[in-house]
Order: sequence, then structure tokens, then C-alpha cells
Amino acid sequence: MRLQLATWPQVEAYLERSRAIILPIGSTEQHGPTGLIGTDALCAEAVALRVGEALEVMVAPTIAVGMAQHHMEFPGSMTLKPSTLMAVVRDCLASLVRHGFERVLMINGHGGNVATVQAAFAETQTELDRLSPRPPLRTRLLNWWELPAVERLSVRLYGDAVGSHATPPEVALTWALHPETADPRPLEPRIAPYGAFFSAADFRSRFPDGRIGSDPSLATPAHGEQLLKVAAEEIAGMAGTFFTAD
Amino acid sequence: MRLQLATWPQVEAYLERSRAIILPIGSTEQHGPTGLIGTDALCAEAVALRVGEALEVMVAPTIAVGMAQHHMEFPGSMTLKPSTLMAVVRDCLASLVRHGFERVLMINGHGGNVATVQAAFAETQTELDRLSPRPPLRTRLLNWWELPAVERLSVRLYGDAVGSHATPPEVALTWALHPETADPRPLEPRIAPYGAFFSAADFRSRFPDGRIGSDPSLATPAHGEQLLKVAAEEIAGMAGTFFTAD
Amino acid sequence: MRLQLATWPQVEAYLERSRAIILPIGSTEQHGPTGLIGTDALCAEAVALRVGEALEVMVAPTIAVGMAQHHMEFPGSMTLKPSTLMAVVRDCLASLVRHGFERVLMINGHGGNVATVQAAFAETQTELDRLSPRPPLRTRLLNWWELPAVERLSVRLYGDAVGSHATPPEVALTWALHPETADPRPLEPRIAPYGAFFSAADFRSRFPDGRIGSDPSLATPAHGEQLLKVAAEEIAGMAGTFFTAD
Amino acid sequence: MRLQLATWPQVEAYLERSRAIILPIGSTEQHGPTGLIGTDALCAEAVALRVGEALEVMVAPTIAVGMAQHHMEFPGSMTLKPSTLMAVVRDCLASLVRHGFERVLMINGHGGNVATVQAAFAETQTELDRLSPRPPLRTRLLNWWELPAVERLSVRLYGDAVGSHATPPEVALTWALHPETADPRPLEPRIAPYGAFFSAADFRSRFPDGRIGSDPSLATPAHGEQLLKVAAEEIAGMAGTFFTAD
Amino acid sequence: MRLQLATWPQVEAYLERSRAIILPIGSTEQHGPTGLIGTDALCAEAVALRVGEALEVMVAPTIAVGMAQHHMEFPGSMTLKPSTLMAVVRDCLASLVRHGFERVLMINGHGGNVATVQAAFAETQTELDRLSPRPPLRTRLLNWWELPAVERLSVRLYGDAVGSHATPPEVALTWALHPETADPRPLEPRIAPYGAFFSAADFRSRFPDGRIGSDPSLATPAHGEQLLKVAAEEIAGMAGTFFTAD
Amino acid sequence: MRLQLATWPQVEAYLERSRAIILPIGSTEQHGPTGLIGTDALCAEAVALRVGEALEVMVAPTIAVGMAQHHMEFPGSMTLKPSTLMAVVRDCLASLVRHGFERVLMINGHGGNVATVQAAFAETQTELDRLSPRPPLRTRLLNWWELPAVERLSVRLYGDAVGSHATPPEVALTWALHPETADPRPLEPRIAPYGAFFSAADFRSRFPDGRIGSDPSLATPAHGEQLLKVAAEEIAGMAGTFFTAD
Repeated sequence: MRLQLATWPQVEAYLERSRAIILPIGSTEQHGPTGLIGTDALCAEAVALRVGEALEVMVAPTIAVGMAQHHMEFPGSMTLKPSTLMAVVRDCLASLVRHGFERVLMINGHGGNVATVQAAFAETQTELDRLSPRPPLRTRLLNWWELPAVERLSVRLYGDAVGSHATPPEVALTWALHPETADPRPLEPRIAPYGAFFSAADFRSRFPDGRIGSDPSLATPAHGEQLLKVAAEEIAGMAGTFFTAD
Repeated sequence: MRLQLATWPQVEAYLERSRAIILPIGSTEQHGPTGLIGTDALCAEAVALRVGEALEVMVAPTIAVGMAQHHMEFPGSMTLKPSTLMAVVRDCLASLVRHGFERVLMINGHGGNVATVQAAFAETQTELDRLSPRPPLRTRLLNWWELPAVERLSVRLYGDAVGSHATPPEVALTWALHPETADPRPLEPRIAPYGAFFSAADFRSRFPDGRIGSDPSLATPAHGEQLLKVAAEEIAGMAGTFFTAD
Repeated sequence: MRLQLATWPQVEAYLERSRAIILPIGSTEQHGPTGLIGTDALCAEAVALRVGEALEVMVAPTIAVGMAQHHMEFPGSMTLKPSTLMAVVRDCLASLVRHGFERVLMINGHGGNVATVQAAFAETQTELDRLSPRPPLRTRLLNWWELPAVERLSVRLYGDAVGSHATPPEVALTWALHPETADPRPLEPRIAPYGAFFSAADFRSRFPDGRIGSDPSLATPAHGEQLLKVAAEEIAGMAGTFFTAD
Repeated sequence: MRLQLATWPQVEAYLERSRAIILPIGSTEQHGPTGLIGTDALCAEAVALRVGEALEVMVAPTIAVGMAQHHMEFPGSMTLKPSTLMAVVRDCLASLVRHGFERVLMINGHGGNVATVQAAFAETQTELDRLSPRPPLRTRLLNWWELPAVERLSVRLYGDAVGSHATPPEVALTWALHPETADPRPLEPRIAPYGAFFSAADFRSRFPDGRIGSDPSLATPAHGEQLLKVAAEEIAGMAGTFFTAD
Repeated sequence: MRLQLATWPQVEAYLERSRAIILPIGSTEQHGPTGLIGTDALCAEAVALRVGEALEVMVAPTIAVGMAQHHMEFPGSMTLKPSTLMAVVRDCLASLVRHGFERVLMINGHGGNVATVQAAFAETQTELDRLSPRPPLRTRLLNWWELPAVERLSVRLYGDAVGSHATPPEVALTWALHPETADPRPLEPRIAPYGAFFSAADFRSRFPDGRIGSDPSLATPAHGEQLLKVAAEEIAGMAGTFFTAD
Repeated sequence: MRLQLATWPQVEAYLERSRAIILPIGSTEQHGPTGLIGTDALCAEAVALRVGEALEVMVAPTIAVGMAQHHMEFPGSMTLKPSTLMAVVRDCLASLVRHGFERVLMINGHGGNVATVQAAFAETQTELDRLSPRPPLRTRLLNWWELPAVERLSVRLYGDAVGSHATPPEVALTWALHPETADPRPLEPRIAPYGAFFSAADFRSRFPDGRIGSDPSLATPAHGEQLLKVAAEEIAGMAGTFFTAD
């Protein structure tokens, strides 16, 4: 049930029985020498659509460009300023709440979005609080790659080569979706360096090929399908309460 | 060549030979009783991908939520405030120009975006002008449905039933992309009322089912494929000069 | 009936019988080697005052500095960023609607303002929509130089020398208002080059004296008076319905 | 020398010999039962034009709508939010400094603008400070009605009836400019109440006819001409140093 | 009664009997070769706490970083952009009014804050005015160093060496609070130059050690205690009416 | 070494040997029936000053009001909108980096600040990236209560009564600083309910006395001193590398 593929009378009918909606958010940024620039958006959207099917919950269009400031030294990366992304999330939430969507689950594919989205939740709540009468809204953000079952599966599949950027789980998921892009060639070093970083230039100098601590050559499309299934099931299990509780 | 499906080294290689990119923009808003809420985004993206293939030009991810303030009385419509959309476009342009994309063609699926996008072009240019050195950037916005060949075909197919919102050409194009959504049932009145409007409430009271001046029941998936082909060819013909001229 | 020359009790009395107001907007930017920097503001204000007299409608003070980013390489041009101009228009509309002015006609003298003003209309409507109760507001923007009767007269007077910037019609109108500034000397080339442009620097390099496609040396104060009369009559004819319809 | 009535080559020539410009700012707000809504803008503009003539200094178009939040309970008053007015002043200064106007004198007609304009000066300076190289800019704000010679003349003409809003000096000046608007009828009470206020509603309840401490019925067009002359001479005397000093 | 040292039930009880609160604001900026960078915040806070004790009025936490753009060429100075400071003041006022604090007295330690704070008062009032119902709020800003009794004492203690920045009264007050920082060494020149300034660079070149017109070597901790006492008494005398009047 | 108690020549001398600075950030919000409204700011400041002493690092003034939207139903709570707090942090960082402070450690006392501060780091970095030349800046945020040694001590002292708001560790720390405010009376229920929340109203209805999962009656001033010591030592141990690494 993609919002984009529904008509307005179908949405009206849906709102008779549910106030739930999923809003996927990703990023458009380098994912190492073999990972896709759209990895985070593709993963979030795929997980969201599976969850939507499982729970018969509407899925809004994906926010494809997120907060990727630290990746901007790599060609093709796109970023919104945090203040812009906050405004986008606030406007999306304000649109949805106007129609009666009062439980908004954001399924996220990119760690760099978390802070800004959380700030946007608070900003939106502040603005709703000033209106009369105050519209009720509950929001929640879930990072698909951090779910316990997903982390367990990731470690089982890739051990110490998961890393934290351009990771084999996310790469595998995109290769499941777009097998023609799979590029499992060995990389040098096999496992990329690991560590913190400060600015875009600092990121590039520490992690010259864009990976952090990962070996995405271990990914396979089959893994991706497994991960997608596990992630969707786990979120579906968690989200039911969120969507229906008073 | 979707940016989302490329790796950063592929983008780097691309930028060796081209500074062109297409950025599609649509909207997420009601399109009458039988049209899809995602119509404008789906159309813009489909046309952009065809043009990208024809010209071997990179296509950035679609801005799916646009400026749809006037549709907000219909369930499911989403809108960015114009100021938010301006910031989104500005940040996307700033991201692209940083990598050397200096010719950005926006292919647009929604009339309500035009003013805001044009304002965003000027806002971006003002900011680039203050930097030292000034990065060169050329932007252009094309509305696919207003191209002469598209308009000619639309009139040939639908005569006086084209209208200006939830039109058969755009509906046909989405049905070509998602035939399972095609819903050609007759509507009442056959051709929706036509005219201007002022606010969201005013829109709904004048055009109670969301259409303006159109009869989307005439649309067919086959028409949609024809329209997509004509639109893409026409833009490809026009964009070559824009992308390559100094 | 200039708002500036009324007292507040006079405005209060006016609002008993009308909710209409005209808000002129121009620009402060180069108009070629012989045209005045204030051309767009002077024209919009003059037309607005004539319409105001004809319809006995109040005229608010002119927004004299508009969006003129592309003219900034010529000395004396002033510009607001689009986001600033949006805020100005939004605040003016919010001020007027507070008093009960619910029909605001903006008479515009500058093409570069159109996108930003339209975006401002939507931004304002979004904000009004969130208030409780929602104040009703209808806005309309008219470009005086594009009115059918004005275009016909322009072509009759100047043929293919009208062009699109520093045009003889607008120059003529300012010379009618300020005959001491009339400077009909022949220019070289007689008709300026025509075409599109991208940035302020690009504009100046394509159109080195500031004109686009025009020969303002054909302008005369008498033409200006004719154009002013035709423009005001045409708008007066169109605006009646806008001001009074429910 | 109004900027609006100059051509860009005239401005270019002017900048060869001077970097000075005057930017008048007023307000559009109630001025008591007999004063004009445009009083503050009319006064500032008139004084600025006289100073411009005396010193052969360019005068930019008047900012006619200022910060008049406290007057908004009186029909016809218009206001910019302080943040909007700051953006307007910042954009005007940024436009001027780009051409080489490095000494900007703002002649002000409204006390309510002072804080916002001073804040805008600092905001602009902060932004210029971040550019490379930093453009030099000096700004100054003068309130015409507070000049020592103007205050002396005001007291001589009106004694304890000057007050602080809708004062006879400003009313006289507008009546000198627009004698047909002069309305010297006696008001009740003769001298309006005096005091502080907090909000728009509070202002209206304390000062029901809009005047504060004043008796504008004493004003005459002849007084206005005297005041205009004195104000312009005094500013001309002070501004010379500002415009020319390094 | 520092808000920071109260519990929420204590604030709830306080609001049963009073709607008054004091909000101190200072700055973090150079104060000459011997004055503390925190001078303005320390002074405002000390005076506020004394007034709070005298009147049994709650004191909110001090806004320690203000608008100090002109001091930024001296190491250690910090500044908010005026637009940021406006947002801070607006948010603080909105927070307080939500709980029923309807009389907010800001005690200020820095001249550079005045314009921005006054603009913030108007911005806040504009926003409150749009809400339904409109919350009542009265705000007042007092500069402690300009109070008549403080000025008299300052002149009596320091004569023509008070100056306008890094003045002996403010320096004395901080030395009373932090005697270990007292540094009464003679400065060269004894009295710093006096005059106006335009930008941060201009300030530093005119006033190379940061003082304007002052000789802070005359300050003593004992003077500081005297000044603190006089300032607090004077404000306590003035504020009673503000806090309690309807 | 508080920045507030230094003179500018002392800061200049300091910058000769170090580019490090600590910027504490807290909040002003309810902390249960017995905890202080200033808890988070008091704790962050106290820890920061200890770390500053241990490492001889400068400490900037505390940001006392943070992002406390969810506490606004309790009297006395103050909040900045996330967008305002982002601007504050950005301006503070921009001020510091201008002087050469290139390693900024924020010591945080409030979980609700984390998202916004992280977003502000990215926003600042985006802006610095556009300047020419790009100033180097590294930022880090540490939550004192989450440090491993602090958590271990907290659990050892309070077992399952730590909770997540109005916790005994933070309450103890404030009572160490202000023993006169210690209020160890038993609360009902002993341990407050635990769980998630969505809006300010939702927070208050779930946690009616403001505590989440905690029993602050266990706190003692002596515990607070212990916790302060452990926190400061742990941060001092971690921050050395951050401050000095290239």
C-alpha cells in the first residue's frame, strides 16, 4: 500500500480504519568503491514496503536525500543541511497529521539522519503544541540495520567485517534489489580502517575509498533477501503496538 | 544512469566527460477519484529516466513531495512549504555543483512547483555569487506536459477533456507504469468543472472530486507509453544544447 | 485612494464597504543605457494608482525592491533574496487580512518577481490555514505588460523592437511620468541581442548594455501615457469580478 | 538624485566620485484620527531627498513598510516582522555594497524601526565578515525627528503638545507635502494621553484614537516646510563627515 | 529565588501568587586589557539576583552570550547573530508565558543587546498575536549601567574616566564578585580614546586595547559592591509597578 | 580557567599553546518533585569546570537553556526550539573557530540536547565548508551521565532506582553543589514509572510527578561529590587525545 499508488478516496477509506503510516528516509551518498550511492534510500524503502505489506499499513514516498554532510568529498553524494531536513520532516508530518495520520513510523537507512530527524520531531511537536486545538501526533524512528535480529544475522554472516559504513548488510540488500549492480570484487585493504571522523575532508583522508571498517565484497544478493526479510519481520513485530496503542 | 544505482567511482568517471545531470521533481497530491496520489512524481521520474537513457545523462533521485498546498483538503496529499522546497532545491544544487555538475535540468511533473523552483534557482545563484571563487551553475526547469509535442498529442487523444488537473495524459502515463492501478470508470460529470481557485478550502469546494476540467476516464496505458516516448524525445532534443553549451 | 494618504478612520470606513486592496510591486534594477533603474516600480505604481482611481479601490505602498538577482552586475541594481521577498509579501498580506482586506491584487512591474510572489501566496496560505479560525484571503498577481491589450498596443507601436528587458513600453511609461528623464538617443546595436541567461555574470556578458531584444529609443512620453491608460482600463475591467466575487 | 530616476551608466559614473548613498525608511501605520497612515515614510523620504540634493548624494527607494507591530489594532496599519525587516535591510545593504556603495545613511521616520535596523546592521556585518575578502561597509541610522535643531523647533512651535506619536511635527511635514490632506480640526482630548504600552491590544486600549501625548491640530503646512528645511540642513551638516571619512 | 534552584512544585506555588520573572542577559566579549570577558553577564546576573531577593521575584538563568559582533577581533569574544539572539529571546518568552509568567523584566549588561532584544520583543508579540486565544505578555528591558542613580554614582567615583566600554563601574562590579581577578594596574593611555566605530576590524583599529573612553584602573571591589547595591535598589524601586500593574 | 573570568590578553596567550575549549550545555526543566529545574545545566557546568582544571583547558559559559520540549507541561521548564538551539551552537562554534579554538568539547547534561547538538555540528560544518579557506574544526559531545565509570558508580549506589529522568546521580550532583536544596524525602511511588513518551502532554500524563523510573530520595550530597570526581576524571582521560591529536 504505497501512498503514491493510491487514490484519495482510497486514502480516505484507509483513514476510516487506521491512523498509521510509514515514512521511509534514506540518503544519497557514497557507499565505498562498490556500493551504490542510493544504498540508504533503497534499503529503507524496501524494508518499509515489506513492513507495509505485512501490517497493511500505508507507506509514504521515501525521503531520498538526507543529511550526508560528511560524505561530500566523494562525487555524487548529495546532502540537505540539517535545518533543511528538519523543515522537510516537519512539513511531511504536518501534512500527514492534517489528514488524521497520527502514528508516523520513520524507517531509516542512514545513521547521519538520526539526530536531525529527532530534532525535527521535537520542532514539529513544539509547533503543534501552539495550535488550538493541539493535534495529537506520535512519531518513532527505527534504524533497520540496528535491530537486534538484523545485527545478529549481520554478525553471523560477516563477523568482524560488518563495519559501520558501506557495510555488507546494506550492500547485500541493495544487490538483492538490483542484482545487476552486484560487484563482489575483493577490495584493498580487505577490511577498511575503522574510527571516528570530524569533517568531510577529514572523512575522506581517513577513509580514502569511503568504507569504514567493512568488507562489502562478502555481500551477496541472497544475503540481502535474508536481511530484508528479517528486518521487515522484526519491525512489523515492534510496530503493531506503536500503531494501535492509545 | 540513475545516480542512486551508481558508485562514487562511476560518478567520478562520468564527471570526466560530462557536467550534466537531470533532477526530477514531482508532487504527492490527489489526482481526482481515479488518479494516483503520486502521479506527478511518477511521471517526472519516468520521463527523466528515458531522457537520461537517450542522452546518457545521469539522473538524480526524484523530489517526490513538492508544493501542493492547494490540494491539502484531500486525504493523502502532502506538501512542503514553499520556503522548505526552496531550501531543498538549493541544497541539492549546492551538493551537485560541489562535484562539478554545472548543468542541472529539472524535469517537473507539477505546475504548483514552478514558482518555488524558479525562486530557488535565484536564491541559489545569490548564494553562489557571494562565494569566492563563484562556482558556475546553469539550471533549467522543464514541465513535461507543456512541451509542444506533448500538448499536440494530448489534444489529439483527448480533445477538450484534457483539463488542467488529474488530466488524462498524466493519468495515462502512470497507468502505463502501473497498469494494475488503471481505473477507467466513467466519472460524473464526465468533464470536471474548470476555473481558478484560491485556497485549499476554495479548491475543494469548486472541484469536489479533485479534477479540474478533465476526463481521466479516457486515459489508457497505451496512451501513456506514447506520451512518455514523445515527452522524452522532445526533451532529449532540447536538452542537448543546454547540457553542452558554454 | 492611496493607503499612505488616508487616516485610519478613513480606512475603517472604507472597510465597511469593500475588502479590496491593490498592492503594487516593482523592482530597482538596470533598464539599459537609457532606462531608469526604478522603471518597474514606477510603472507598477502608476498603473495601480490609475486602477485604484477607476475602481475606487485602496492602493497600498509599492514594494520598490524586488527580485533582481540577474541584474546585479550592473551598478545601482538592488535585489532581495527570494526568501526575503517571500517574507515581505507574506507579512504584507498578513497585515492586510488582519484588518479585513480579503481580496489583494498585486500589480507587478517585473517578470523576475512572479515566481517568488506566487510562492509567497502559497506560503501565506499555508500559514493562514493553520490558524483557528482560518482567515479567508484571495490573492492575484497581474503583470501589466503582458495584458492582451497592452501587448497589442506595444506591438503596434514598436513591432519587433519590444524585446523583453528595457522594453520601449516600460521605458515610455516612465518617460510619461518623468519627462525630464527621456533620453531617446539611438543605441548600438539598434535592437539588443535576444535570448536566455543563467546568472548575473552570464546576463552581463550576453547583454552588455542591459537591454534584451529591445530598442527603447522608440519610446516617447506620449506612448507612455497611452500605455498607462490602456493598462489601467484593462486591469480595471478584469479586477472588478475578483474584488467582489464570493 | 534619486537612484530610481538614474540609469545604470549614471550610477557607474557617480560611483567614480562617491561611495555614499541614503536609504530612507518609514512605516505604514496609523497616525491618529487626522494623520496619514504613510506619515513616517513620507517624512523620511522628503527629508532624504532634500539631503540628497544638498549634498549631491544618491537616494535609494524608501522602505515604506517598517516594524509597526504595536499599531496593528488600527485599520490600515501594515508591519513587517522584525526578522523580515532585518532581512530586507541586509539584502539592500548587500546589494549596495556589491556596487561599491560603502557609506549607507539610513534616514528614519519611525521609532519602531530603530531596534530592528540596528540589529540588521550587525547581522549584515557578521555576514560580510565571513566573506573573503571582507567588503568594507559603514552604516548609520538617523531619526529625523530627534535631531537637536528639529526638537528645538518642535518645542518652539508646539510646546508640551509634541507628544510621541502622531506628533504635530510629523503631521505638519506630511501636510506640507500633501496640503489637500490637512485636517486641523480640534481633537478630544486636546492633548492625547501619554505613557508606555506593551502590545497592540494594550496600545489601542490606552490610546484609543492612536495619538500619544500629542495635539496634531496645531500642525500647519507652513510648519512642515520649516521642519523639513531644518531637518535636511542638520543632517546635511552631520552626514558630510560620515560620507567622506576613511 | 533562582529558577534553576527551584523545583517545579515550588514554581507552581510561586505562580499562584505572582506572574513576575527576571531574565538577565549579558555578553561574552573582551573588556579591555584588565576586564573580564564575562563582565556583562556577571554584572547583569548579580544585579538580577539582588533585585530578585529584594522583591521576592524569580530569576531565570542568564543569557550569557549576546550580540557582540563588534568585539570579534579580540580573542575570546563570542557572539550570536542578531537573528539567533532574537530566536533565543522569543523562545524563552514563549516558554515563560506558557506557564503564566506574564511580566518579564530583562536586566541587561550590554549595550549591544538592546536593539536585538527590543526586536525580539516585537517578534514575540507578533507571534503571540496570531494565537487563539492571545496570551497576555508584558516585557521590559533595563540596562543597569544607565539607571540615573548608577550614572550619578559612576560619575562621582570616576568623573570623566567612565567611558563607554570596559568602564570602571562594570569592571568594579565584577571585581566585587571575583576579587581574585582585580587588576588595577595603570593603563596606557590612562583614558582610552573615545568615539564611534563601524565593524569589528574598525573597532579594533580605533580602540586597540578594547577600551572606549575609560580608565578601568580606577575600579575597586568596594566600588563594585556600592554600585551593585545602588543598581539593585533602583531597579527594585522601578520594577514593582511593572510586575504588579494590570 | 573560565573564559568568563579571563581577559582577552589571557585568552590570546592561551591560544598560543592550546586550541582546546570546553562548552558545557544543560537544560532548564523540571526534575521531579525534589530535583532542581537547573539540574542539567548545573551538572554539566560543574563537570566541565573540573575537567578544565584537570587539563588546564578553557571553559566557555554554559548554555543553560536547551531542548526541553517534552517537559513543557511542568511549570518552570524552558525550551529552545531545536532550530534555535542549532543556531546558538553554530554561532558559538563560529565565534570560537574565528579565534583559533579548533577543538571544541561539549559536555552535556541533558539527553534531549543530543540530537539537536549533533545536527548543529553538521550544520556548522556545512557552512564552514563553503568558506574560503575552510577553517578546521573538530567537535565532540560527551554526556557525563553515560560515561562507563559514571554508570558503574550509579548502579553501585542506586541499583534499579537510577531511572532515566530526575535520576539520583544528577540530583546528588546538584545537592553536592547546593546542599541547602537537598530534599531526600521519600516519594510515592518509590520508583517512578518507566517507559517512552511522545509529546509534552503525553509525558505529563505518563509521569505525573516528572520522574522516569527513578528514586531521587536515595541521593546525597556526598554521592554527588563522588560522581562529580569520577565523571571529571573519566572525561579528562578521554579528552586529552581529542584536544591534541592532529
